[in-house]
Amino acid sequence: MNLLLLHPHQYLHDNLWCLDERQGRHVRDILGLAEGDTFRAGILDGDVGVARVESIKNNEITILFNVESHPTPAPSLSLLLALPRPKMLKRILIDATSLGIKRIVLINSWKVDKSYWQTPNLKAGLLREKMLLGLEQARDTSLPELILAPRFKPFVEDELDRWAGPGRRLLAHPGDFPPMPCDLSEPVTLAIGPEGGWTDYEVEMLQRQGFECHSFGTRILRVETALPALVGRLMRLP
Amino acid sequence: MNLLLLHPHQYLHDNLWCLDERQGRHVRDILGLAEGDTFRAGILDGDVGVARVESIKNNEITILFNVESHPTPAPSLSLLLALPRPKMLKRILIDATSLGIKRIVLINSWKVDKSYWQTPNLKAGLLREKMLLGLEQARDTSLPELILAPRFKPFVEDELDRWAGPGRRLLAHPGDFPPMPCDLSEPVTLAIGPEGGWTDYEVEMLQRQGFECHSFGTRILRVETALPALVGRLMRLP
Repeated sequence: MNLLLLHPHQYLHDNLWCLDERQGRHVRDILGLAEGDTFRAGILDGDVGVARVESIKNNEITILFNVESHPTPAPSLSLLLALPRPKMLKRILIDATSLGIKRIVLINSWKVDKSYWQTPNLKAGLLREKMLLGLEQARDTSLPELILAPRFKPFVEDELDRWAGPGRRLLAHPGDFPPMPCDLSEPVTLAIGPEGGWTDYEVEMLQRQGFECHSFGTRILRVETALPALVGRLMRLP
Repeated sequence: MNLLLLHPHQYLHDNLWCLDERQGRHVRDILGLAEGDTFRAGILDGDVGVARVESIKNNEITILFNVESHPTPAPSLSLLLALPRPKMLKRILIDATSLGIKRIVLINSWKVDKSYWQTPNLKAGLLREKMLLGLEQARDTSLPELILAPRFKPFVEDELDRWAGPGRRLLAHPGDFPPMPCDLSEPVTLAIGPEGGWTDYEVEMLQRQGFECHSFGTRILRVETALPALVGRLMRLP
């Protein structure tokens, strides 16, 4: 936790906030802070700044929070991701969020096992919890918008164009395609397939929506490795 | 496992090889192959090609292997990595290997917990096992060369220059530095610090060995996220 995220319901009055149990444990037991000590905090979907421990009474910790700046800017990169296997979904959401991705669609694909859509990991609360961990890691406050698209064709045909909006649409796909570009200044929508890749039919459907195929080398990478590798390549550094 | 890796001691005669227990389980139980079926295989530190199941007798599987091509080329990227926490070391080694990194130094740093050097994970056999998994993932055969450098100063002062050799030496470091470049055609040695970063003293020592500081944005990333993001950015795609 590199930034403590304050949620609106934690506000008391006069810039005072109360910490929840997990935050309290972090401040007291991991950071080992006492009254008067300061640490970095931010308001969910708001600004970042410095918090000072005002009082520690049993399990109740009150802090005074002062805004210092806007959160770190995010790359203009939206992610269309074939639903990963449940074990990796959590990690991928933390990673995607820490890398600054603000718009994510988890979509079905021929090679996504149907059972993945039944997993309890897909409950909105759990997805949100993982994205909050990603924000705390990257010192960000702005929660990504996450959409589930359990049917590929209707989403791609009827909604994807509007969702992706302006900018380039890129697809990492093995084959004789131009290499994946890097350091792009325009907005990007990146499509990442399941283990085993999109089917030809799915690639055609995405191409019809303006996605360009690009090669990312001949190595087969796990989705959780390919995602940061592609984002690190595409994103424009300030 | 996208490529079955054959080790020299598995060779029988006339291009016939016997599978070990893990490989046998993969071929029989996961791929569900029978006599006559084919799959992709490669010889450790050698070429890749196609294997055909010759015989399955109880737990003994014999295959016929025919070379087709050299393994996928690797990016010219060496990695100087502060020893990660044990839980993540395995995953980082699999990732680094699947991304094609062939030269790795795990080095000490002020912020590396001393206990990390005592972990059983650092046994050569276990490190090698993880790198083999990375090769199988990426359909590669060429095992990385891995060096442990439990003392920072002597390695950096006396050995790093020779080890890194020609090419650029890059350090991702927060601050007012030029952005991390991308798609580099020359060889690169990349230094990645521990959680919390290199100390100022360590950065100075690395700079004295020709490492240039570059910014990789203001987000704090976990090492296991930063590594693929940086490699994906730096590597030259064919």
